[in-house]
Amino acid sequence: MRIAVDAMGGDFAPDAVVSGCIAAAEEIDCGIALVGDPAAIRRCAEGRLSNKIEIVEATEVIEMTESPVDALRKKKNSSLAVAAAMVKDQRADAMISAGSTGAATAAAHLLWKCLPNISRPAIATLLPSKRGRFVLIDSGATPDADARNLLEFAVMGACYAETILGVPRPRIGLMNIGSEEQKGTVMLKQAYKVFKAVFPEFGGNIEGKDMFNGEFDVVVCDGFVGNVALKTTEGAGDLFWHFLKQATPKNPVSRLIVGLLMRKGMLKVRKDTDYAEVGGAPLLGVNGLCMICHGHSNAKAIKNAVLVTHRGLQSRLNHLIAERAARIPREMDNAS
Amino acid sequence: MRIAVDAMGGDFAPDAVVSGCIAAAEEIDCGIALVGDPAAIRRCAEGRLSNKIEIVEATEVIEMTESPVDALRKKKNSSLAVAAAMVKDQRADAMISAGSTGAATAAAHLLWKCLPNISRPAIATLLPSKRGRFVLIDSGATPDADARNLLEFAVMGACYAETILGVPRPRIGLMNIGSEEQKGTVMLKQAYKVFKAVFPEFGGNIEGKDMFNGEFDVVVCDGFVGNVALKTTEGAGDLFWHFLKQATPKNPVSRLIVGLLMRKGMLKVRKDTDYAEVGGAPLLGVNGLCMICHGHSNAKAIKNAVLVTHRGLQSRLNHLIAERAARIPREMDNAS
Repeated sequence: MRIAVDAMGGDFAPDAVVSGCIAAAEEIDCGIALVGDPAAIRRCAEGRLSNKIEIVEATEVIEMTESPVDALRKKKNSSLAVAAAMVKDQRADAMISAGSTGAATAAAHLLWKCLPNISRPAIATLLPSKRGRFVLIDSGATPDADARNLLEFAVMGACYAETILGVPRPRIGLMNIGSEEQKGTVMLKQAYKVFKAVFPEFGGNIEGKDMFNGEFDVVVCDGFVGNVALKTTEGAGDLFWHFLKQATPKNPVSRLIVGLLMRKGMLKVRKDTDYAEVGGAPLLGVNGLCMICHGHSNAKAIKNAVLVTHRGLQSRLNHLIAERAARIPREMDNAS
Repeated sequence: MRIAVDAMGGDFAPDAVVSGCIAAAEEIDCGIALVGDPAAIRRCAEGRLSNKIEIVEATEVIEMTESPVDALRKKKNSSLAVAAAMVKDQRADAMISAGSTGAATAAAHLLWKCLPNISRPAIATLLPSKRGRFVLIDSGATPDADARNLLEFAVMGACYAETILGVPRPRIGLMNIGSEEQKGTVMLKQAYKVFKAVFPEFGGNIEGKDMFNGEFDVVVCDGFVGNVALKTTEGAGDLFWHFLKQATPKNPVSRLIVGLLMRKGMLKVRKDTDYAEVGGAPLLGVNGLCMICHGHSNAKAIKNAVLVTHRGLQSRLNHLIAERAARIPREMDNAS
């Protein structure tokens, strides 16, 4: 088992990536290939590379500002392209990148293609709720999804919730602008009918404000809506921290007292809402495991991304998705 | 000048509505017509009705669970239908309701029709940012908006920001899933081009996470995306309060100390993020002023909704929208 990691992707690469991989390697029995500039990787590793970690050379880096597809075409020897090619050639089982999300999505989709019976990929993001975490799928890979795509997303999201969150029968919700069956676009009304027929665990339409109640394990939407919901959550969270900082007393003594008394609780909130805890979001539906990390990923986020990817490989996530996806068409025919 | 208020709409109606209107009437020189069950309204008023307030009888109430259009057709004598008819017959200049958003939108749209050169209505919601508040438009009236609709929404949102927020040249952003010009759907790429040609204050695409930075005064999107963004913001805020409560120390003495020290700051946060402070969200683009209030509206929210509606009437908001909308088609032809 081997995971190819784009060592040059992300705001704090290669330092954070290399450190995160070294920390992860201590906990799992899995090979890690650090793909990028060997000299830079060695400098960051400071002699801490174990025999589980190897370095694979790649001379180029795809920048965040580049057009994903163009960059992939031009930079065949970029760290991302080389890592993706390793999975394609079965020299690795999974890929991790904290670089451009668009480029990682394009590389996995174009190079690996979709799993059988899956027509479009989707990004599954874990978000905090009042009762733990839930899966938001798709959070950006397929902005123009149709009802059939949403059905596939639901299958993939449920597989992810089962294997990674450990939820035996994930409850599925369809993101809409009202809870009633007849709400939303023509596509969503169609999706509602199919979901109802296919999934015993379908809990109906769900609105943005109810997502965080913890009543649903998987919230399904197209990639445009999901990306807006994800980023709005990020922005609202950031705004709240800003307000909280402003609400803290200016007087240094009062400030210190509040800090001491709230410290333990606030550390828990930080942990519960920190994306570094969940490591990254997988691009599901492609023929290989692709973990996309936040551009700001620190070593902890990278480490957790490696651990989650390893768990995905161990639990044969893609095998489960392919198995379930094979049952979709028949069920869809029954539903229509 | 007269405002027709649906006295029976909302979770705390008619009490909160009547009390809010009585409080507002003390501050403005404007007639208020409370539409609903006269006996119930008088009971709530407890003799506090001034000569600025009159009661208009309506025998029916539209429930939140009813299909908006069906309910309006069947319940011609509902408080909402009567209030909307008053505006149509020019017996009132504006309408306020904290009942079903769908029913209020349908009543205003079907009965009053759109303003000249406006093809679809939009709900303009004020959301908190790091530097005050901004307008999110459309937050739910037109889920299937096209590029032309978005252009109209931008014009309406800018007029609202000018008259209500007092921003001289509102900066306009287009909600998208990336800041680059070529991001998003075909419709959004088209909208980007037109916005760039038409609005000198167009600041480009904006992602959900940047909405709250306060760099934009008006964020434009279709009603589906806007509704998801609005409700996700609500849900994320609610989740954060939940986490904050959990983070507060369990020990009663520590709890009291934190409460005392944080009280002033937290009250300010509550105020900055409380929808009751902004009263309601107008449905813009229709031939009359329609203020939609949150179902949970308390007396303060209703009072503020009346005050904002009054300001909208005084500043001739609809006149300004019609004037600016008349210039759109020519500008759009230049742009294409």
